[in-house]
Amino acid sequence: MLRYLPILDWGRHYDRRTLSADLLAALIVTIMLIPQSLAYAMLAGLPPVVGLYASILPLVAYAVFGTSRTLAVGPVAVVSLLTATAAGAVAIPGSGEYLVAAIALALLSGLILLAMGLFRLGFVANLLSHPVISGFITASGILIATSQLRHILGIDAGGHTMVELARSLVDGLPETNLPTLAVGAAATAFLFWARSRLRAALRHIGVPSCAAAMLARTGPVLAVALSILAVVLLDLGAAGVAVVGDVPQGLPPLALPPLDFGLWAALLPAALLISVIGFVESVSVAQTLAAKRRQSIRPDQELIGLGAANLAAAFSGGYPVTGGFARSVVNFDAGAETPAAGAYTAVGIAAASLFLTPLLYHLPVAVLAATIIVAVLSLVDIGALRRTWSYSRFDFAALAGTILVTLIRGVEAGILTGVAISVLLHLWRTSRPHVAVLGQVPGTAHFRNILRHDVISAPQVLSLRIDESLYFGNARAIEDVVQREVAARPEVREVVLNCAAVNGIDASALESLELIMHRLQDAGIRLHLSEVKGPVMDRLARTEFLRHLSGGVYLSHHEALADLAPDTTRDADARARPDLDPAQPFPERPARRPT
Amino acid sequence: MLRYLPILDWGRHYDRRTLSADLLAALIVTIMLIPQSLAYAMLAGLPPVVGLYASILPLVAYAVFGTSRTLAVGPVAVVSLLTATAAGAVAIPGSGEYLVAAIALALLSGLILLAMGLFRLGFVANLLSHPVISGFITASGILIATSQLRHILGIDAGGHTMVELARSLVDGLPETNLPTLAVGAAATAFLFWARSRLRAALRHIGVPSCAAAMLARTGPVLAVALSILAVVLLDLGAAGVAVVGDVPQGLPPLALPPLDFGLWAALLPAALLISVIGFVESVSVAQTLAAKRRQSIRPDQELIGLGAANLAAAFSGGYPVTGGFARSVVNFDAGAETPAAGAYTAVGIAAASLFLTPLLYHLPVAVLAATIIVAVLSLVDIGALRRTWSYSRFDFAALAGTILVTLIRGVEAGILTGVAISVLLHLWRTSRPHVAVLGQVPGTAHFRNILRHDVISAPQVLSLRIDESLYFGNARAIEDVVQREVAARPEVREVVLNCAAVNGIDASALESLELIMHRLQDAGIRLHLSEVKGPVMDRLARTEFLRHLSGGVYLSHHEALADLAPDTTRDADARARPDLDPAQPFPERPARRPT
Repeated sequence: MLRYLPILDWGRHYDRRTLSADLLAALIVTIMLIPQSLAYAMLAGLPPVVGLYASILPLVAYAVFGTSRTLAVGPVAVVSLLTATAAGAVAIPGSGEYLVAAIALALLSGLILLAMGLFRLGFVANLLSHPVISGFITASGILIATSQLRHILGIDAGGHTMVELARSLVDGLPETNLPTLAVGAAATAFLFWARSRLRAALRHIGVPSCAAAMLARTGPVLAVALSILAVVLLDLGAAGVAVVGDVPQGLPPLALPPLDFGLWAALLPAALLISVIGFVESVSVAQTLAAKRRQSIRPDQELIGLGAANLAAAFSGGYPVTGGFARSVVNFDAGAETPAAGAYTAVGIAAASLFLTPLLYHLPVAVLAATIIVAVLSLVDIGALRRTWSYSRFDFAALAGTILVTLIRGVEAGILTGVAISVLLHLWRTSRPHVAVLGQVPGTAHFRNILRHDVISAPQVLSLRIDESLYFGNARAIEDVVQREVAARPEVREVVLNCAAVNGIDASALESLELIMHRLQDAGIRLHLSEVKGPVMDRLARTEFLRHLSGGVYLSHHEALADLAPDTTRDADARARPDLDPAQPFPERPARRPT
Repeated sequence: MLRYLPILDWGRHYDRRTLSADLLAALIVTIMLIPQSLAYAMLAGLPPVVGLYASILPLVAYAVFGTSRTLAVGPVAVVSLLTATAAGAVAIPGSGEYLVAAIALALLSGLILLAMGLFRLGFVANLLSHPVISGFITASGILIATSQLRHILGIDAGGHTMVELARSLVDGLPETNLPTLAVGAAATAFLFWARSRLRAALRHIGVPSCAAAMLARTGPVLAVALSILAVVLLDLGAAGVAVVGDVPQGLPPLALPPLDFGLWAALLPAALLISVIGFVESVSVAQTLAAKRRQSIRPDQELIGLGAANLAAAFSGGYPVTGGFARSVVNFDAGAETPAAGAYTAVGIAAASLFLTPLLYHLPVAVLAATIIVAVLSLVDIGALRRTWSYSRFDFAALAGTILVTLIRGVEAGILTGVAISVLLHLWRTSRPHVAVLGQVPGTAHFRNILRHDVISAPQVLSLRIDESLYFGNARAIEDVVQREVAARPEVREVVLNCAAVNGIDASALESLELIMHRLQDAGIRLHLSEVKGPVMDRLARTEFLRHLSGGVYLSHHEALADLAPDTTRDADARARPDLDPAQPFPERPARRPT
């Protein structure tokens, strides 16, 4: 029970000190979350109020089931973009079907995350290598920022790829609304300034360091308040500046998500993508924050926490949510001690949607677009291209491929391309395992690579050490190596495979071993195994392979050689090498210090 | 030059003895290949003569560029099925566009194989694990056999999945043509008998063993000859038995394949699949035969050989080809010595298409269908399900998934599902690398798992040995392990990662190491590395990571501990353990002999 309800653990030690710390953090996060929720809902193509709804019950659900003490969940940029793409594929933005699709995405994503948590399938997230995630986020940031330009310019434009976006922006340019552009550009400039300079400016005028850091995060709230004032005082609405308009007042509507299996089937792939990407993002934030306080999180339970949050979103008119980076850092810095802070934030947002929504009527859409642009451009990391290039050409290929395809073909094609490239390159890297031909170190029971050490070997016995677990990706390479080494040594009659470094043999590799054995048999050569690990042996013992094996299985390589080439081995055993200390291992490839 | 033209190597030693051996083998393979070529062309939905065309120039091209001495290329069952599926998706079988699509597939497949050979991309074939190939071939065999039943029954039916096939067969059943069924059933029964009993029967009547083996392979030719006679003598054509009809007489038409980029783009995924599957099949046959004579083949050059063969097919009105199992074994058994035997076979087939085609007019289609059914059912290996289940549930999942999806959703979905399952399961298997907490074996410089050995460790230093290369699939697991182990030991101030078993660190894992370092730093703990291998160190030296590293990099783990916990280490160094022989390694998990 404790396993699935972390609240039972931290809830028992909850006291007044924790309460006041959590309340303060919740207040600050609430202020920050209001403009963010509105903006990300708009990015997802949804009415702004949906963003508020997605920031109430999901936070409570995560507080009950999540393992991170300080993660703040809610709408985030990348998941909003993915929602817009997926819902836009089945309905027209602004329509009732579009909202239904967004709610269905939250439901599916909640079920998927829950199932992944219960069946411990979190490893699926490992498919997303770091270059793929980094490239995807950079490209998404560029796409999102570009898509928001239309609100800054006050024109109609849209699209899911850079080509579509650029074309429609250029087409719309002549209709730019200058007052909107003025508001949007001013807000963008202010937000950039606030992000990079406000903190220093506050400290300069004497605000204490800690409070300055908090206040610097309120840039978007200031921009929202000032722009509402400007619209009201200058009557900018009449000048063509688009405003948010009526935001329904009240708590989120509790309702069963629509049961439409056709729609669910159509949205399933997108929901899977949203789940995995949201999970990866959230866990990395949660882990980083947990480490700062020497706490730890449980990724499998995080899946359940995020799953519960998304189900809560689906049942209260929201859309997919996950843990956000910026807000979690604020929550952490503001001193949140337990997930209860999230629940208090939910109360704050609920209060806002009960009482503050009328104030938002005059909020210019361009200001929301500006907060999105400034937030997502901070995610764009072009320097990663250079850094990754210098470390590994392969990882660079995955990174650049993901960025390019995401920009040119859209988010779903981009992430799939990235995964395909990294899996292929990983298979390529591991497809040629290191295999050493061994000889005996004179005077010891050690066997080492004949290319690197002064060792003794019998001409009729070929000893090969395989330095990798055997699986379908490298099984054929082992066949090649054995065949080549045997073809190069016509006098060989016995082949001994040293399996000390083999941690597993899958069915493909077993098939390869059988092929190797049969091929060697056709050439009059026996195959032996040595130093097979226990678990590997247990598995082999269940097959025909060991029964058919033309040679033997030896506990140690020395034992094998003593049996197959007794003369050479006796000779090598006797010839001690004075330069060797038998207690020391012989490093194959000596490590070096960086100079 | 020799590298890309293996003919320059074997051609220099060509003499009269080799010539006569090759000529004999070519004669036998020609006789076997004529009915096969016609049948597989029919399976691919093409006019029978296309099968003959695909068995002429491609064989000559492979003889020049291939590295296997005995591989016989030409139309094969699985590739014909894939061709039918791909061409059927863009054109109606029997139409001119359908033939154009088949030729385009040969062209694309030739270019893909050639490119893979030149850029050494043969490793892509490793994506197809053994269970996936085995499941795919079994399911294809069942699909192919079922699809040919319509010719045996003499009805119209079709489809690309078992459901479609079964439904259309049941619908057509009432229109069964009884004379056709009689011919088809007789041919099928005869061919099954010939395959399993003819050899023994021939030996029984005194035919020498070697000749009996050869003659037993001529079952299809006998069935063809006898059925033509029956049609002519009994006038079965008038009774509704479908015959092959006019087969154009003459050599293949040399022509440029049509330049239609739209068509090429549509066929590209299928051509990729055909290339990879054809390559895997062909290489495994070639390698098995080469091993029997202690020869070896070069997989990268095989790609070039098969690529050239497919280009030759495209320029001479053929369709995709690859190395076939049955015919290569016949070629080998008949004593072929060099690839020249393939060129002589090409001459034989050319002669047949010049002079024998009029004889094929009365050949019943049902007999060709019977040869296909008997050939492909021998590929079906249901026992693999049981064998794989007992060896590994994971590999069983890949095998069963491939069979099911291929049968239910068709060949392309089947192979993609299989690849996805095996890649996911491989990532799952390698996603949790073995990590051991180490302590020093008293009196030695060895460090071993504290859970398995009686060792000494300092409370402030945590030594971890990672037993796997680090890549995106396990990078996050390492983060988890370090965080968990540190969280469990509040007294730890130093963490030393022993990298003796780490052969590589990709960009994702580097990112994880940086995260681990920063998280440890936040908790006041330093991170050190020990026993980093040379190539790994070279790569790390190009990054910021080593410059920021909070701790040091040590040549040996003992050196690290002597530096970080000098008191404990001095103590452990002094306490020799009398029960240990320092010359012997300490087996972590002792190997066992099967009982």
